[in-house]
Amino acid sequence: EDRLKQQSVKSLDPYSTDPVRHPALRVNSLKPFNAEPPPEILSDHYITPSDIFFKRNHLPVPQVDPEVYRLHVDGVPGVEPLVFSLEELKTRFPKHTVTATLQCAGNRRSEMNRVKPVKGLSWGIAAISNATWTGAKLRDVLLAAGFRPEMSEQAFHVQFEGLDRDVTGTSYGASIPLNKAFSEDGDVLLAYQMNGEDLPADHGYPVRVVVPGTVGARNVKWLGKITVSKEESSSHWQQNDYKGFSPATDWDTVDFKSAPSIQELPIQSAITQPAEGTLFDRGAGEVTVKGYAWSGGGREVVRVDVSLDGGQSWQVAQLQSGEKGHVPAPSPQPGRAWAWKLWELTAPLPPGAQELEIVCKAVDNSYNTQPDTVPPIWNLRGVLSNAWHRVKVTVKDE
Amino acid sequence: EDRLKQQSVKSLDPYSTDPVRHPALRVNSLKPFNAEPPPEILSDHYITPSDIFFKRNHLPVPQVDPEVYRLHVDGVPGVEPLVFSLEELKTRFPKHTVTATLQCAGNRRSEMNRVKPVKGLSWGIAAISNATWTGAKLRDVLLAAGFRPEMSEQAFHVQFEGLDRDVTGTSYGASIPLNKAFSEDGDVLLAYQMNGEDLPADHGYPVRVVVPGTVGARNVKWLGKITVSKEESSSHWQQNDYKGFSPATDWDTVDFKSAPSIQELPIQSAITQPAEGTLFDRGAGEVTVKGYAWSGGGREVVRVDVSLDGGQSWQVAQLQSGEKGHVPAPSPQPGRAWAWKLWELTAPLPPGAQELEIVCKAVDNSYNTQPDTVPPIWNLRGVLSNAWHRVKVTVKDE
Ligand SMILES: [Mo]
Ligand SMILES: [Mo]
Repeated sequence: EDRLKQQSVKSLDPYSTDPVRHPALRVNSLKPFNAEPPPEILSDHYITPSDIFFKRNHLPVPQVDPEVYRLHVDGVPGVEPLVFSLEELKTRFPKHTVTATLQCAGNRRSEMNRVKPVKGLSWGIAAISNATWTGAKLRDVLLAAGFRPEMSEQAFHVQFEGLDRDVTGTSYGASIPLNKAFSEDGDVLLAYQMNGEDLPADHGYPVRVVVPGTVGARNVKWLGKITVSKEESSSHWQQNDYKGFSPATDWDTVDFKSAPSIQELPIQSAITQPAEGTLFDRGAGEVTVKGYAWSGGGREVVRVDVSLDGGQSWQVAQLQSGEKGHVPAPSPQPGRAWAWKLWELTAPLPPGAQELEIVCKAVDNSYNTQPDTVPPIWNLRGVLSNAWHRVKVTVKDE
Repeated sequence: EDRLKQQSVKSLDPYSTDPVRHPALRVNSLKPFNAEPPPEILSDHYITPSDIFFKRNHLPVPQVDPEVYRLHVDGVPGVEPLVFSLEELKTRFPKHTVTATLQCAGNRRSEMNRVKPVKGLSWGIAAISNATWTGAKLRDVLLAAGFRPEMSEQAFHVQFEGLDRDVTGTSYGASIPLNKAFSEDGDVLLAYQMNGEDLPADHGYPVRVVVPGTVGARNVKWLGKITVSKEESSSHWQQNDYKGFSPATDWDTVDFKSAPSIQELPIQSAITQPAEGTLFDRGAGEVTVKGYAWSGGGREVVRVDVSLDGGQSWQVAQLQSGEKGHVPAPSPQPGRAWAWKLWELTAPLPPGAQELEIVCKAVDNSYNTQPDTVPPIWNLRGVLSNAWHRVKVTVKDE
């Protein structure tokens, strides 16, 4: 009877069927599961292994039977709704592979929290990861569903609905602009593989959207339905979340209609090594600083500047755009740089300095740069936290 | 004999046939002619009148006979070079009109000069202006010249050569990536009209390139030749100028090959009113701040924050995307916001404050923001000067 009771309690918990996760992950929330890898592990791999790729779930992980799975495509002007099986997605459409970095809008939120409390999971600097994604191009699926370029005058957005649901039956949902969805150069995928294997349960098995250059929140997992529409998704996450505001805006004055939904993300970089508070021996003579840098919208990172003195003087870091020791991938076309760059700098310890404030800032090929400080970009949801990253370390003389 | 001598001296000066300019312009260089309008006039017009639109010439203004004018198109793989007359450009291709802001890479260079001397014309904040441009789409001309999308694998750049020449006969030249040049959404024009009239001599009569969202330097005036190529333009201005560097890079260490040529420009804004040093009567009770904001790459300005206390606290300005009192143009498609926004804020004078440090910063729809301060973006050529703009004014109690 006890066992029966336990089972029935377990089955009442919609999270009971969530997958087992890697123990190294730093958990920000268990239900739904949200976790990031330790920063010093993140920058060990150009392609983040799937099990330590940051996890950002809004709802319980749905259990999807690949045989029963169907993708619904709706709202193409004048065309009947269509349905695709997983097998059809895999066999009817050319298979494309794209290396793309995903970043949560809330990455580095904890730094905003230190300025003034914000609402949201307190992410460190590792709610960002890089993977190869394989699947059908959304463009090809839209064409097969009857969508024609001329229809762009009646349809401006492509909405996605997940198979993950809350207790009221509401699915996760989001949308992207049609011109991104339909662009030949936009590289939007309906991905069924991550890093060469079936998508893991936490990353959207069996099919997710990968929208390179666009905030994680629009890369809908466990994709159930695509709707071409004049309107953005009506979901909470599109309308009343994932938007940026002025530091002057508080919960009494915020008008979510006044700001655009976050799509492309701004230039970003952070220091993964050394960690805050590290002790260095002066005898070591030098310090090695490592990190990542990425920009949204397919803009390529072209330079990372590192300072050891809080931003007074700067040195240029070495960029790495592939696994260490491997031949780097050829430079992407302008506007199609979807993957991050890792970077590294080894520099002499400044003579005499007892404490170093290590700082990094990146520049993309639109020459956008990161803002110097957090307070002027503070916002009530703690999103878009991309100020210079600062880490303080100590140099010991003995 | 004296008159003869004078004429011959005059004819030796290649600038003697330059046009007459508006007397309100602030001249940074006479030969070649470089000038900007007074800031407070700039923000009076959403569409900048052509005669006060900033002038940025690298060489003498060429005299071009419209009957004799020919545009050469070269380098299309496997196709003979072609030639178009002005009449053909006007009649063979659909006529498109685009409202686009142009900005010199050196706009606001004077603020960098104050940090540490840089090389270049000391522009204020008005080396930026907004106009409507009418002409043929470069895409259509490339198609007529035999270019096909499949050729994108053998050609990556479109080079432009001006009819302006230096004493050695070298033309001004620049190039843009092929995907921008050929994109349906890129809106690159071979413009023969500015603000509804023939191009003025200073702006490229009879034909110039307008590359919306891209630095002024690539918008080649007095266009003589287009070359489709695997390589960027070999011109000085493409290779050894108009690139961004780290503040650590000086003339002894600079390697121009190490940085990408500037194409899309980063988010920008500045205060056009009040001017630095303005005296306010406390009795006035309030202050009105005006300015412009723009971002490259077709990114739309979505917010401008204004501070009256040096960046401690912020207020959101009103944006204006058309002439005052007119119905604003409909929102552009994502990625096709080529025109600036003017903005305005009227706020109470902070009680007690004797000096105000007025600051502005803009945000675009990729949520890129301007850096807080100038020194960390300082670079030896003084380009890409887009830190927060700061203006100090005084409040008088009597
Ligand atoms: Mo997110
Ligand atoms: Mo320029």
